Amino acid sequence: VIGDDAHISDEPDRLANIVASMFSGQSGNGGLSARLANGAGVALLAGADAQDDCAVLRLSGEQELVVGSDYVRGAKFRLYEFGLLSDYDIGYYLVAANVSDIAAMGARPIGMLTVVRYPPTMTDTQFATVLRGIRDACAHFGAPNVGGDIGGSDSLVLSGTAFGVCLPGHALMRGGARPGDLLCATGPTGIAGAAMSYFRSRRTSASIEQEHRASLLASWTRPQARVREGEQLGSSGLATSCQDTSDGLKATVEAIAAASGVGVTVDEQLIQPTPEVAAVCAFLDIDPMSIVFGDSVDFELVFSLPKRNLDALTDVFAANGLAFSVIGQVTAARDVLLHRLDGTHVPLPGKAWRHAPEQVSVNRKPI
Amino acid sequence: VIGDDAHISDEPDRLANIVASMFSGQSGNGGLSARLANGAGVALLAGADAQDDCAVLRLSGEQELVVGSDYVRGAKFRLYEFGLLSDYDIGYYLVAANVSDIAAMGARPIGMLTVVRYPPTMTDTQFATVLRGIRDACAHFGAPNVGGDIGGSDSLVLSGTAFGVCLPGHALMRGGARPGDLLCATGPTGIAGAAMSYFRSRRTSASIEQEHRASLLASWTRPQARVREGEQLGSSGLATSCQDTSDGLKATVEAIAAASGVGVTVDEQLIQPTPEVAAVCAFLDIDPMSIVFGDSVDFELVFSLPKRNLDALTDVFAANGLAFSVIGQVTAARDVLLHRLDGTHVPLPGKAWRHAPEQVSVNRKPI
Repeated sequence: VIGDDAHISDEPDRLANIVASMFSGQSGNGGLSARLANGAGVALLAGADAQDDCAVLRLSGEQELVVGSDYVRGAKFRLYEFGLLSDYDIGYYLVAANVSDIAAMGARPIGMLTVVRYPPTMTDTQFATVLRGIRDACAHFGAPNVGGDIGGSDSLVLSGTAFGVCLPGHALMRGGARPGDLLCATGPTGIAGAAMSYFRSRRTSASIEQEHRASLLASWTRPQARVREGEQLGSSGLATSCQDTSDGLKATVEAIAAASGVGVTVDEQLIQPTPEVAAVCAFLDIDPMSIVFGDSVDFELVFSLPKRNLDALTDVFAANGLAFSVIGQVTAARDVLLHRLDGTHVPLPGKAWRHAPEQVSVNRKPI
Repeated sequence: VIGDDAHISDEPDRLANIVASMFSGQSGNGGLSARLANGAGVALLAGADAQDDCAVLRLSGEQELVVGSDYVRGAKFRLYEFGLLSDYDIGYYLVAANVSDIAAMGARPIGMLTVVRYPPTMTDTQFATVLRGIRDACAHFGAPNVGGDIGGSDSLVLSGTAFGVCLPGHALMRGGARPGDLLCATGPTGIAGAAMSYFRSRRTSASIEQEHRASLLASWTRPQARVREGEQLGSSGLATSCQDTSDGLKATVEAIAAASGVGVTVDEQLIQPTPEVAAVCAFLDIDPMSIVFGDSVDFELVFSLPKRNLDALTDVFAANGLAFSVIGQVTAARDVLLHRLDGTHVPLPGKAWRHAPEQVSVNRKPI
């Protein structure tokens, strides 16, 4: 049956009839406006509704702009192909993955650009559903979708760019950790990885508890990028380095250590698997630590914190209804180790993802 | 024969060994630094070489930031598949297409983010060649590639985001044209479209002159985004609206007219086809005006200019070694017409691309 739901418009019609109305009311008065503690400000003048060559933002005062792009493909698309993620979910995911990179810089996300390229078979209804997921995630994370690019493609392509602002000198790089700092995290890792292992196992009929299944799936359908935590990390100036765990905890810890020229010891007793991770690992007979450290696409923030700042940051977070926990410490010796429950020290378990980048010296002087 | 040229590294190795060295020296002192006439400034603190979650720029003073994304697919890839565009060329093209959108806003491009996703068969040498095209185009257009995303994909995906800055209130939208304004262009259109018609005709053995072939191909291999012209249009404050012709001249003129709530009359005698366009049209028996107005992906700027500003802008452009020409005028009656050589007025020829967006009122007041 060919009904409205099966209609497939061309690109100009989609721009005029779906995109413009989806993002109406962004431009001009009443649109995004943000101000930093030093009085620096950002206001959106022309967003996606303007349908111009670019979006326009007015900036005033001294601030740092952070910008990053994230292409969404790979593992999450397998769950989409399994029918576990909807069109709405992958739109939502695209935004979460991108704003997480802004949070990892200690900045406040202020806008997104999204590229949505669809296969010839994608209907208007499906396309609009992807955009609704984008729009709602943008509203949730406080970063309007101000533009991007739509059109046809051989297969579905979702890519985004997010940008954000923070106080001058407050952007948190990976290379700032110092020996003696505590290593901290905004939440547990491994849930997204456990979900992937579980749903790919095809053994989901004889199964774990329904409550755990729901929690596992939610890590993919409504990923919680830590944008409020990131903003507090940046504005407080208390942390020394930060990265999100979208490449997995092992990759994150190793990248911070390499970029900072330090070592890290993570304490196993401080990173115990969550109940749903433990359930999956028991069900599939996997070492929980390999999931906690592995290439699990969680969006937690891992950061280093001088010990003297622990109470102050705890207070700042608590005042905003947020929390974090200490998971280890930064060492002068460059080894990256897990301190096991049995007292031994071993290299971090889990699949390594990313090679260590060369250390880059970044100019922190004002212009 | 498996040699170095056939090697295929994984993503972490490509980041560490190819990307980092390709973009070394961006971050910190000696990196990009720009200042606007009002003293507002931008400096790159952490670029692609930092390999952090995001790039970081320091902004000071009052300015407008313009941001846009462009996915590179479609027609140009057919020329790549025909072997007419190299890996280097498509990297170059990605940058030109993106900075053109910044120029169309009257802004100076200051940076790029690029997404390069490659099929499993793309070798390190090919990948590095794409990046060299990106790097060299960025150098040519003055906008360093400060980050992005690389990795594998089913097929080649190239997408970018460019950003730029201009004085407060100087970003040029499509909706500012007023009746009585002159319609102007930075150069002739149709060359890229003629090239596409010619090379797709497969009749290139019995052929047009070699000089014309070279010029046609150059419109694809080294597209000249009008970044210097765009910067002068914005900084001078003399123009009232602007768009680039990447969707074709007809689409551009119609979009400016619709967004501005005006009509436009283009004068055929002011948009005569270039010699290479005339040669292709004669060879393939096509109406030249359908190519000049059609979906030819040129990167000229079309802008509206109050008559009283004509001499002043001519002087500004001449002082910078640049030129433009008048191609028509803006009318109160909303018709978009071609004034033909025979004195008649007809709708614009060529394939329509884009529907008219709704007019959006943009807040131009300072924050």
